[in-house]
Amino acid sequence: MPVWEVFEAKLDGPSEGNPFADVLIGAVFTQGHREVAVDGFYDGGGVYKVRFMPDTQGEWTYRTVSSVKALDGREGSFRAVAPLAGVHGPVRVSNTHHFAYADGTPYFPFGTTSYAWVHQSEALQEQTLVTLKSVPFNKIRMLVFPKHYEYNHNEPPFYPFPHEGTVPGAPGWKNDFTRFNPEFFAHLEKRIGDLRALNIEADLILFHPYDRWGYQSMPAEVDDRYLRYVLARFSAYRNIWWSMANEYDLMKAKKTSDFDRLFHIVEEHDPYRHLRSIHFSNVPYDYSAPWVTHGCLQLAKFDEASRYLADWKKPVLFDGVQYEGNLDKRWGNISGDEMTRRVWDGGVSGCYVTHGETLLNPDAEMSEDTTPTLWWSHGGTLKGTSPAQIGFLRKLVEESAVATGGVAVRAGFEAPEKPYYMNATVYATDKTTARTVLYYFDDHQPIWYEFPLPAGKFKADAIDPIAMTVTELDGTYSGKARIRLSGKPFRAMRFRAV
Amino acid sequence: MPVWEVFEAKLDGPSEGNPFADVLIGAVFTQGHREVAVDGFYDGGGVYKVRFMPDTQGEWTYRTVSSVKALDGREGSFRAVAPLAGVHGPVRVSNTHHFAYADGTPYFPFGTTSYAWVHQSEALQEQTLVTLKSVPFNKIRMLVFPKHYEYNHNEPPFYPFPHEGTVPGAPGWKNDFTRFNPEFFAHLEKRIGDLRALNIEADLILFHPYDRWGYQSMPAEVDDRYLRYVLARFSAYRNIWWSMANEYDLMKAKKTSDFDRLFHIVEEHDPYRHLRSIHFSNVPYDYSAPWVTHGCLQLAKFDEASRYLADWKKPVLFDGVQYEGNLDKRWGNISGDEMTRRVWDGGVSGCYVTHGETLLNPDAEMSEDTTPTLWWSHGGTLKGTSPAQIGFLRKLVEESAVATGGVAVRAGFEAPEKPYYMNATVYATDKTTARTVLYYFDDHQPIWYEFPLPAGKFKADAIDPIAMTVTELDGTYSGKARIRLSGKPFRAMRFRAV
Repeated sequence: MPVWEVFEAKLDGPSEGNPFADVLIGAVFTQGHREVAVDGFYDGGGVYKVRFMPDTQGEWTYRTVSSVKALDGREGSFRAVAPLAGVHGPVRVSNTHHFAYADGTPYFPFGTTSYAWVHQSEALQEQTLVTLKSVPFNKIRMLVFPKHYEYNHNEPPFYPFPHEGTVPGAPGWKNDFTRFNPEFFAHLEKRIGDLRALNIEADLILFHPYDRWGYQSMPAEVDDRYLRYVLARFSAYRNIWWSMANEYDLMKAKKTSDFDRLFHIVEEHDPYRHLRSIHFSNVPYDYSAPWVTHGCLQLAKFDEASRYLADWKKPVLFDGVQYEGNLDKRWGNISGDEMTRRVWDGGVSGCYVTHGETLLNPDAEMSEDTTPTLWWSHGGTLKGTSPAQIGFLRKLVEESAVATGGVAVRAGFEAPEKPYYMNATVYATDKTTARTVLYYFDDHQPIWYEFPLPAGKFKADAIDPIAMTVTELDGTYSGKARIRLSGKPFRAMRFRAV
Repeated sequence: MPVWEVFEAKLDGPSEGNPFADVLIGAVFTQGHREVAVDGFYDGGGVYKVRFMPDTQGEWTYRTVSSVKALDGREGSFRAVAPLAGVHGPVRVSNTHHFAYADGTPYFPFGTTSYAWVHQSEALQEQTLVTLKSVPFNKIRMLVFPKHYEYNHNEPPFYPFPHEGTVPGAPGWKNDFTRFNPEFFAHLEKRIGDLRALNIEADLILFHPYDRWGYQSMPAEVDDRYLRYVLARFSAYRNIWWSMANEYDLMKAKKTSDFDRLFHIVEEHDPYRHLRSIHFSNVPYDYSAPWVTHGCLQLAKFDEASRYLADWKKPVLFDGVQYEGNLDKRWGNISGDEMTRRVWDGGVSGCYVTHGETLLNPDAEMSEDTTPTLWWSHGGTLKGTSPAQIGFLRKLVEESAVATGGVAVRAGFEAPEKPYYMNATVYATDKTTARTVLYYFDDHQPIWYEFPLPAGKFKADAIDPIAMTVTELDGTYSGKARIRLSGKPFRAMRFRAV
C-alpha cells in the first residue's frame, strides 16, 4: 500500500456487554527499530479496527494489544510503497509562519467554511462534494457534532450516541453517553475520505456550543472518551486538522482548563501530530501555548497581523472574518468584493484567511427560523463572486511559490517607514533571495508609488484582484522603483525577478 | 455693537524699547456687578489694542490696566445689541457628547482640513475662501505657524517673528523671539474673520512639528509669550477653537507636561473658554483631563467610539481618518466613497469626522519635493466627490436636529444583542423622545433587517449616501420592524416619527 494512505486491520471480537467502554484495543506498528503505538476502536457488531498511516516506505509489521485475549497479540505486516500521484502527506508548519506537506511541497491554506455539511441530506452532501471539485478551496472548517443555530433547524441523518426519544432536549430525550453510534462515525469518516480524494484538508471541529442535543455539556469523562474515539478512528486520515472547538468561550459548561486537558489528550493519542488549534468568539485562547500549532482567529484585525506573527512565531489563520452574504447578521452580510479584499489583506500580511458564504435568495422569508441552504453551514452550491477571485489569488501565490522554492516571507526588509508602505508578501527561500513580491493596496489609490525592491532586477505586473487580470508593465525595475499606478483602489502589484 | 462681535479699543502708547516684552496691557469689562478681565496686545507702531467679545446685550464699560501710565486707567463704554442675523455665538459642548452654539442652536461639526492655507499666495487664499463658500464644511483645521513637509516647500508671505537671513534653518537664519511680527498676526486674524463671516469655525492649531524655521523648538518662555499673544489677539473671535498641537507627540523638544502647561495658559487667559483639544500621531493625549473639552483623534477606529464616549464623557472628533486623495502616502490616498463612508461611520457612532483632500493631477510628477496645490494643506479648489456627499449627510443630520429639538443621542436603547445591530444615531431631546433614527449599514448588505424602533410610529426612508437619494417607503413602522432592503452595501435608513 502507498504511504500516507490508511492501513486498516479488522479484527473480530466480543460483542456482549459494552465493548466501547470495556474493551481496550490498539497496536504497535514497527519498522526496524522504530515503533508507533496507535489506538484502535470498536466499530459495532463484534468488529474491532486498528488504523495506521505509514509515512515511510518499506516493510511494516504490527502486533495488537488488547484487554481481551482474542484481540491481543494478533500480528500482521504490509509493504508501504511510493505515494499515489498528487499525494504529499499531511500538512505541517513550515518556515515558522507557513505550511508545507510532509514531502516539502508548499501548502497555502485557502479554506472555506461549511460547518454542518455532513449533517444534511445525502443529496445535498453529494452536491457539496460536486461543488468542492470545481472551487479553489483546499481546506474546509466542519463540525463533528450536528448544529443548532439561527438558520439551522433540521435534524441530522445520524447521531453520535444512541438515544431515547425523538425531540432533542425535550422530556424523553436521553443520550446513552456510554456508547457510540458507529454509523455516525463511519459516515463522517467517509466524508473525510471524500475530502481527502479532493486534496481538501478537513479542519475538524471537535466541540461547539450550537446545540440542542446535549453534546456541548457532556461530563468530562464522556468528552475524553469521545475524543479518544475520534482520534482512534480519524487520525490515520492524512487530511485531518484538529480544531478543538468553535467559539470555545461560548461553551459555558467548560473552563479553559478543560480545553487545555482536551488538547493534551489529542497530543497524547494522535501518533501523526496533526495540526491543532482552537477558535474563539470574544476571548482569544493562549495561542502561544506549545500544544497549539497555529493561530485561529475570529476577527479581521489585519493590522495586528505582524504582532501575532512576532508574538506567537506560528502560522496565523483568520478563521472567521465575516462571510460573503446578505443575512440580517453582521457576520454574514459582506459583499463578495469585501470577502476577496479580506483574503488579500490577510494574505499579504503573511497570514491566511478563510472564506464563507451566507447568501439568501433576495425573496427569502424574513425569518431566522427557516433553514435555507447556506454554504456556510449546509453546503450545496456557491453563488457568490469571491470564490473565483480567491482562486485567482491562490494561483498567483502558488505560481510565486513554485518559482521561488515555495516560501512566503513577510516583507518590510527595506521599508524603514513601514506604516507608510503598503503591505507585501515576499516569496523567497529567505529574505535575501526574494524572487517574487506581491503588494496589495487595499482601499488606497495612489497614482504613483515607490516600491522598495529586494536586490536584483524585476519585471512588474499590475494586478486587478476583482477583475482577475494581470498586466505586465514594460521594462525592468530595481532598487527604489517609482511606478505610475491606476489611481484606483483595491489593486495589486507583483514583481518577479528576471 | 451686536453681541458676539469683536469690540476693539485702540490706544496710542510708547513704541521705544520692546513693547512686546516690556509693556503689560489689559482691561476689565464691566456690566453691573459682572467683571471680565481681558489681555491686550501691542500691534506695532505705538498702537496697543484691547479686544472684547460681549455675550450679553446692554451697556458695557471698561477700564484699561497697564504697566505704562499712558495706557492705564483709560475708560470707555459701548452698548451691546442683538446679534447679527445668523450669528449664534461661540460653539460649546452640549448634551455631553455634542455641541451647540451659545444661543442653544445645535452645531454638528462637519469639518475640513487645510493646514497651511493662510501661508499661501493671496490669490490662492482668496480662491480657498471662494471654495469654502460653496462647500458644506463648518469647521477648518489650520495651523498658526507655516508648514514644512512633503509637498510643502514654499515660503509663507509672513513670518510670526522678525528674523535675520533668508534661508530658514541655514547659517545666518536667526529668529528674534523677543518680538512678534504684527503683520503676520494681523493677516491671520483677517483670515479668521473671513471664516467667521462664512460661519466656519477656525480650529486653530497652536503648535506643530512640520518646521524648518525653528518654531517647533522654541524655549518654554517664548512658547508661553507667543501663546499669550495669540490669546490676546484672537480670543474675541467667536469662531475660534484651540487645538494645542498637531501630532503633539512628534514634537521632540517638548514633553507632555509642556503641553499640560500650555493648556493651563489657555484656560487662564481665554475669557470666553473656547473649545480646547490636542491632536496626536501615535500616543493619545489624556483626553479625560478636565482642561480638554473634546477628543481629537487621528485614527479611524470607529468600533472603539462607544468606549471613548463612555470613558471621556465628552464629544469625540475623528480629526485625521486619512484623506480623499491619490498620494503615495497611506494617509492621503483613499477614495471619495471611502472618505464619505468614514464620515458616516463616525457620525452614526455618535462622533464627528473631519474631511481632507489630497488629490494630485494624474500626470503629476512622481516626487514629494514638489509643491502642488493640495486642499489638505494649501487650499484652492476641491476636486473630490466626498464634499457633496458629506453635505448630503450634514443636511440629513441638521434636518433631524431641527425636527427634534436638536440633540443627537447614541442608540442601543432596544438592542440587547448590540454587536449584531447596525450603528445608529438617534435625534431626540432624550432617549425616550426619539423622533429620528439614522441607521448606516457600512459594508454590510442584508436583504432584510429587524430595526428596533423607539416607542411610536415612524415613516421609513431608504437612503443611498453615495448617490445622495432619499426614497420614502410605504406605510408606517413601529416596534421591531422587519424591512426588506436592497442587499447592497453602504446604504442607510432613516426613521421619522409621525
